[in-house]
Amino acid sequence: MDDDRPATPLLDRVAGPSDLRQLPDNKLAALAGELRAEVISAVSETGGHLGSSLGVVELSVAIHAVFNTPLDKLVWDVGHQCYPHKILTGRRDRIRTLRQKDGLSGFTKRSESAHDPFGAAHSSTSISAALGFAVGRDMGQPTGDSIAVIGDGAISAGMAYEAMNNAGHEGRRLFVILNDNEMSIAPPVGAMSSYLSRMYASEPLARVRSMAEGVESAMPAPMREGAKRARQMVTGLTGSGTLFEELGFDYIGPIDGHDMDQLLPVLRAARARATGPVLIHCCTVKGKGYAPAEDAADCGHGVAKFDPATGAQAKKAGGAPSYTSVFGTALTEAAARDDRVVAVTAAMPDGTGVAKMAERFPARVFDVGIAEQHGVTFAAGMAASGLKPFCAIYSTFLQRAYDQVVHDVALQGLPVRFAIDRAGLVGADGATHAGAFDVGYLSSLPGFTVMAAADEAELVHMVATAAAHDSGPIAFRYPRGAGTGVTLPDRGQVLEIGKGRIVRQGADAAILSYGAHLDACLSVAEALAQEGISVTVADARFAKPLDGDLVETLARDHRALLTVEQGAEGGFGSVVMHELARRGCFDRGLAIRNVCLPDRFIDQASPAEMYEEAGMTAADIAATARAALAGTGGVVSLSSVR
Amino acid sequence: MDDDRPATPLLDRVAGPSDLRQLPDNKLAALAGELRAEVISAVSETGGHLGSSLGVVELSVAIHAVFNTPLDKLVWDVGHQCYPHKILTGRRDRIRTLRQKDGLSGFTKRSESAHDPFGAAHSSTSISAALGFAVGRDMGQPTGDSIAVIGDGAISAGMAYEAMNNAGHEGRRLFVILNDNEMSIAPPVGAMSSYLSRMYASEPLARVRSMAEGVESAMPAPMREGAKRARQMVTGLTGSGTLFEELGFDYIGPIDGHDMDQLLPVLRAARARATGPVLIHCCTVKGKGYAPAEDAADCGHGVAKFDPATGAQAKKAGGAPSYTSVFGTALTEAAARDDRVVAVTAAMPDGTGVAKMAERFPARVFDVGIAEQHGVTFAAGMAASGLKPFCAIYSTFLQRAYDQVVHDVALQGLPVRFAIDRAGLVGADGATHAGAFDVGYLSSLPGFTVMAAADEAELVHMVATAAAHDSGPIAFRYPRGAGTGVTLPDRGQVLEIGKGRIVRQGADAAILSYGAHLDACLSVAEALAQEGISVTVADARFAKPLDGDLVETLARDHRALLTVEQGAEGGFGSVVMHELARRGCFDRGLAIRNVCLPDRFIDQASPAEMYEEAGMTAADIAATARAALAGTGGVVSLSSVR
Repeated sequence: MDDDRPATPLLDRVAGPSDLRQLPDNKLAALAGELRAEVISAVSETGGHLGSSLGVVELSVAIHAVFNTPLDKLVWDVGHQCYPHKILTGRRDRIRTLRQKDGLSGFTKRSESAHDPFGAAHSSTSISAALGFAVGRDMGQPTGDSIAVIGDGAISAGMAYEAMNNAGHEGRRLFVILNDNEMSIAPPVGAMSSYLSRMYASEPLARVRSMAEGVESAMPAPMREGAKRARQMVTGLTGSGTLFEELGFDYIGPIDGHDMDQLLPVLRAARARATGPVLIHCCTVKGKGYAPAEDAADCGHGVAKFDPATGAQAKKAGGAPSYTSVFGTALTEAAARDDRVVAVTAAMPDGTGVAKMAERFPARVFDVGIAEQHGVTFAAGMAASGLKPFCAIYSTFLQRAYDQVVHDVALQGLPVRFAIDRAGLVGADGATHAGAFDVGYLSSLPGFTVMAAADEAELVHMVATAAAHDSGPIAFRYPRGAGTGVTLPDRGQVLEIGKGRIVRQGADAAILSYGAHLDACLSVAEALAQEGISVTVADARFAKPLDGDLVETLARDHRALLTVEQGAEGGFGSVVMHELARRGCFDRGLAIRNVCLPDRFIDQASPAEMYEEAGMTAADIAATARAALAGTGGVVSLSSVR
Repeated sequence: MDDDRPATPLLDRVAGPSDLRQLPDNKLAALAGELRAEVISAVSETGGHLGSSLGVVELSVAIHAVFNTPLDKLVWDVGHQCYPHKILTGRRDRIRTLRQKDGLSGFTKRSESAHDPFGAAHSSTSISAALGFAVGRDMGQPTGDSIAVIGDGAISAGMAYEAMNNAGHEGRRLFVILNDNEMSIAPPVGAMSSYLSRMYASEPLARVRSMAEGVESAMPAPMREGAKRARQMVTGLTGSGTLFEELGFDYIGPIDGHDMDQLLPVLRAARARATGPVLIHCCTVKGKGYAPAEDAADCGHGVAKFDPATGAQAKKAGGAPSYTSVFGTALTEAAARDDRVVAVTAAMPDGTGVAKMAERFPARVFDVGIAEQHGVTFAAGMAASGLKPFCAIYSTFLQRAYDQVVHDVALQGLPVRFAIDRAGLVGADGATHAGAFDVGYLSSLPGFTVMAAADEAELVHMVATAAAHDSGPIAFRYPRGAGTGVTLPDRGQVLEIGKGRIVRQGADAAILSYGAHLDACLSVAEALAQEGISVTVADARFAKPLDGDLVETLARDHRALLTVEQGAEGGFGSVVMHELARRGCFDRGLAIRNVCLPDRFIDQASPAEMYEEAGMTAADIAATARAALAGTGGVVSLSSVR
């Protein structure tokens, strides 16, 4: 073992939860201390979601001490707080491969361990899944108790509410542990958050602690009464009950989620006596026990590699600005030019770059919380009132609001602007965060304008285009990470809707690129030129309306046509083929090939490695072009026939 | 005017809300009575959502009397209760064209009237949209107050909760009228529903009424205190407040939503004094004032044409059973054969046919309420526990759970079975209910098996296939309405995954049908045979995995290939073209044409009329086939080249 690593004599004896359960209670706090040190040490090497994992160290130990995992099904919501859990469940030897190629996922993942009965990465799914396991148990499947652990941000989403509403109605034995740290990714918003704050603002945790120490003995059967008594004791509230009780849950808490002397008896009591759904409200501190994380503005939500002694994170290499940052600046400039421009984010002001606009125009940026469904229809309502909303949501999360995009935006032709960050493969967050499907699911919608930015200068133009486009919905996608380093325009130009551009003129094969793979396509052209193959490269800019004349020209004037996109099959390539079929361009022969993501999910690695795994490197595309040209044999070429 | 029509002297003077506002208060109850008679008379001719419209007659009159529509933005949730509103807002002359071709939509619709500022049809969007208008007003757009009217079923959806959470946080002046009739489409489920019941179970409405009559004078400024006092007066509840108050709303109610003497003063008081979001809780009776509707099990939710004197509905012509009913029977049989089969519906047990299974196996059918997001992930959890869930959700509503389908089901490869009813165009419900996009948005997901039933016998086989398929997610789509009348098998057969079938062998053109347009394709073949054109017709059965060998054979052996599907571009045709491109089948020429829905939304009419409007009749398809064959000139045919 590396000399710099912390001494972990207790943790070294824990190969799995059954070892942990052999330890006496009075060793578990010490075990948690070692586990925290191990998490800090590991994440200092890998980077990752440090703060959230540090916040649940004691909770992870306590749950595994009390419940019989993996027969009992423990479902971590989002799953980014699972590092202590992974260390405790037989994955310590691989914990320093977190979020890397061929390493452990940064989230829970069914294929990784029986201790991850339901994987996650998107928020607010845990209660639904846990209820599913509870039904399975009640119907004789080999499963024990169901435990969902969900944060205060995640529980504010509509989906979690739907699940609680249903679980309360079902009345099945089910444990929901609310991990309340008043901090999801960004400072929490919404009335639910205020409600939670009020619930424990009135009582100092010191008193909560002394009360909770006696909570087990104070709880008579039936559990419901005990839980109410416990709640009243620790909160001082009386009367008609908490929101959770109104929804049919027994409510226990709030308790100090870092105090093993509260966690163990409360969890044991709940386990011993619950007959229906129980909500256990734990207060925790994000980044707990590691000053650099506790003190950070984001509580160490996502960190790069760092020096464990100081918390100093590895600096990113300088270079081109990120697409996100370019978007934030362009949006702010659009807002400065037109006071009807407003922005919506679903709990991701920093991740989407709208925080930049909020600095200058705070009243025009709306963080709706983890509520993509509401966010999109709220934007549609603003558009109907005459405003110009930009809805900034990652590709993968926009899936959450697909019906709202269809029903509230597209069907009504309302000019909502969708800024779709994280298009394509995203790196360390892996398959769950890939932006693979948006081109297809938006291009099929009548009246939608669908764009993709080939580089960050194009992104600036597309923000301007979207701001100017007031006759219907419009979307533009762009990838995670740094731009290409191209010079940024002083001011974005409004692009002609439905027109692509030729970037390089050739004669043999044509590559029609959509979005940020344009650079790779230009490399292909360069490489093939060395072999005497002359390649045209075009940037489609629009998947919808498609530049059909450009497509037909490319088809007619070349012996092969490749479409290239950072997305799944059924997206841009499909739009192009439909247009070609409509125009009869296939009738006499066209060697078309579609370069897109393969029909499988791609695990985390660097984006470049993921595109390599996807078969989308410049070398792969060049090989496809060569093969397409070879198939046509240079004999039955369209250009020679017509 | 027809002699059978009710006498409506007051209503006849109301060409629009401004006329209504000229009437003295003591005439408004009489106006409501006439309006009710007019709704009954109109719907007796057209069929439609009778019960919900009758439930809001007084509310419609009261809102238009108190608020300054259309400057004030009135947003009806779902919109199926809008018939009285349409009559009051200048559309009375067209009310007997409801839900018919070229007639009024059965829902609110922006393109129809300035009085419909935000259209609807899917549930639970109104609060989000109304908040959008409130922001627009606060930012200087020409809009007055925002009023959302939402039912107790719709408000239980996650999206409505997200909107209330955000509206409570924003604190803007906004009116939400909860139209609580304890009956959405099906008897209400969920803890929220129980909560609402408890809220007024303790006090008879008689007392509520006497209290509410004094509510205006009892409300001192500021409104917040007044509202709390009013609530305590009328509910008898004291203490920490209602759920709505916890979410930041002022709460008023419950009041009798059929009593103008309660509605007018409460709405006026709220309008005069509100500074933030206000929830006004109105209790109404679905079908109110028309005994046949009040007495019906579904309270007249959706009715056919009927005799207004007796309520007797026009009988449907006998004939083939509906796809929905065939599905319900096949599902029940699958459940009888395997006790791991369970079913999930989102508030549509009758509409989806799972009610049939619930009759026999009530404990294995889960109605989660209007909660598609939760429903899908709940099903995924059950699948992870070893059960075999069938998730029965209409195509258009499955859009609500797209991210859950991607993230919780597909990414984890969990064997959830999706029974997708209402695929394709659906008739009177119009564009908002069309099942247009599912083939595309599911076929792009790795590991998904995606089927469509060509007729009701195929549907029986697909239920059996889905029950047997335990290695990953599987979906099957089928249309609204009656089957083709084909003989049903005694027992469904498990189809070979990824294999299509030749239905009719020809030589010149091939039609590859996906789903329920197969009959039309066979008619095309019959018609073209008369002209000496020999047509092969195949039923693909699977969009994924696609029967690539079948597709290649069809392409190779015919001069033209048509794909036909009841869905939008980007679905089956796109899957076929991707496969053909991959196999190089376009390289030497293939006259392919895709017959699918056009790139526009299609208004309500009969399904047959809608497909005519879509250019998808047998005659249209035959014309497409002829044109494709003509383009190839019989000269450069694949079959002659190879």
